[in-house]
Amino acid sequence: MSTIKDYAALINGWIKDLKYPQKPQGLYEPIAYMLCGGGKRLRPTLLCASAEAFGLDCNEVKSQALGIEMFHNFTLLHDDVMDNADVRHGMPTVHRKWNVSTAILSGDTMLTLANRLMGECNAEHVAEVLDIFNKTAVEIYEGQQYDMNFENREDVTLEEYVEMIRLKTAVLLGCACHVGALLAGGSVDDCLNMYKFGEQMGLAFQLRDDYLDTFGDVKTFGKEIGGDILNDKKTWLRIKTASCDGGRLATLTSTTNGTEKIEAVTNLYKELSIDESCMREVERYTTNAIKCLDNVSISDDFKQYFINIAVSAIKRNH
Amino acid sequence: MSTIKDYAALINGWIKDLKYPQKPQGLYEPIAYMLCGGGKRLRPTLLCASAEAFGLDCNEVKSQALGIEMFHNFTLLHDDVMDNADVRHGMPTVHRKWNVSTAILSGDTMLTLANRLMGECNAEHVAEVLDIFNKTAVEIYEGQQYDMNFENREDVTLEEYVEMIRLKTAVLLGCACHVGALLAGGSVDDCLNMYKFGEQMGLAFQLRDDYLDTFGDVKTFGKEIGGDILNDKKTWLRIKTASCDGGRLATLTSTTNGTEKIEAVTNLYKELSIDESCMREVERYTTNAIKCLDNVSISDDFKQYFINIAVSAIKRNH
Repeated sequence: MSTIKDYAALINGWIKDLKYPQKPQGLYEPIAYMLCGGGKRLRPTLLCASAEAFGLDCNEVKSQALGIEMFHNFTLLHDDVMDNADVRHGMPTVHRKWNVSTAILSGDTMLTLANRLMGECNAEHVAEVLDIFNKTAVEIYEGQQYDMNFENREDVTLEEYVEMIRLKTAVLLGCACHVGALLAGGSVDDCLNMYKFGEQMGLAFQLRDDYLDTFGDVKTFGKEIGGDILNDKKTWLRIKTASCDGGRLATLTSTTNGTEKIEAVTNLYKELSIDESCMREVERYTTNAIKCLDNVSISDDFKQYFINIAVSAIKRNH
Repeated sequence: MSTIKDYAALINGWIKDLKYPQKPQGLYEPIAYMLCGGGKRLRPTLLCASAEAFGLDCNEVKSQALGIEMFHNFTLLHDDVMDNADVRHGMPTVHRKWNVSTAILSGDTMLTLANRLMGECNAEHVAEVLDIFNKTAVEIYEGQQYDMNFENREDVTLEEYVEMIRLKTAVLLGCACHVGALLAGGSVDDCLNMYKFGEQMGLAFQLRDDYLDTFGDVKTFGKEIGGDILNDKKTWLRIKTASCDGGRLATLTSTTNGTEKIEAVTNLYKELSIDESCMREVERYTTNAIKCLDNVSISDDFKQYFINIAVSAIKRNH
């Protein structure tokens, strides 16, 4: 059984070996740039590990592993345009390095290439794999739409927020686990439990991300701390705080700027123990995820492997 | 057998009946707006007619007809962003009525919905239909990339131009004919000939479009005459003229503006008989298309039906 790092190394090798047409260069160069830019390769890792847990060699799901990573990077590419982001993984975003038209068109191409890769499996599985994949894709667009809607709303509830990150982030992790198990011949119940594992872990993962954006260490987090506060982003921390002491939060965010704002809002979070509440939610979703593995027909070794991935969501610093 | 108009009416009814999720409205409203905006419904018409020509009721290919029209409108939606276009079918484009982020995200959703619709067929055909469809989609992105590349080039050859419009426009008409025939159980050779028919007809169709943009009648064309000349667009007319008398063309396009420019360049085209050369090419591709039908195993009535569609590409004024 591989470690998480092993799968990531394997997947990076596959990505490096991907062949694109020579022409038109302006279309394919940004795709290679985007895909080689880095990242944890968490989705293809989950897909490979799920396949192996159910007895299929991970080389047999290479196309789907590449497909899900291609899809994930397509969403990042288009999200970067919508968010007007300048940098990803320490490098200029595609629409900054090239232009918006290139970012749109190369992203579209990545989505179609992802569909092709996902469908490269045994004939008996094609329809079901594509059904899960496309259903998940639509949920992710819905999540992104809700995320954009939230920018203009001050009354977002925690429940709405969690549903948004479930759609935008968690379902793709569920899809990765589901597809891996399905291709390896897992039962309907096992596939469903693996999906739920990925989904619940995805919620923990995203809430940990919210936590780290304010309470992380700049040395390990990889980007500046406090970006969400500066941009008035509706995160779990902020929405929870608004529900505890909305008046003070509103005053602070409207009267301060820059590092003063980050410090003032962070202190309010701490005073109200929002950091601890957030980490309790991370732990709760992680526990939910681990519980989903109880009745799944995979070896204890593989259960432990998935538990380790889920627990790492709690402990990760980047 | 239906007339072209009959299929279009049927397809418009299907489009009107399409059900979208209630939420998030901001994602699905632009999709319905785009899809109901109008158009000839040429691609789903070809798909339906091909299916019926090979003996399958067109209601059996409703999903693929909707899928190919959904895909076509997705490309128009994203192209409008890339071209910074304000108006389509006499209505504001999606990125003007809403914004660029909405146009990107709703377009992405349309592409995934198109994939789902295309795959809604008998299990035996799913892989092949999606293979043709996705291969065609990538060619269309490549065509759009070449089209954008041509904006910054003065040395585009007629051969390069025809290859660009083949990719950007013609292959989707070929794909429509191919998929209809395939789902109806057409032989490999028949499917290939139907594809070629659609592709050659697509070339005639696009060259007629180039012709009409300069030599059409504003009363029937539906948009202003001379837009391509004003925008220095590399069309067949312009590239052919550059190869005949590049010096005069360059002088005219750099020293004139507005209606004067349209008049001057149109007169140069006429003097060099570029209008007639262009229409000869439209006729040549139409003849090519009709020849592809020679050995196809469909009734003479259906052959005549497809010939009529192809000939209408020569005669159409809008």
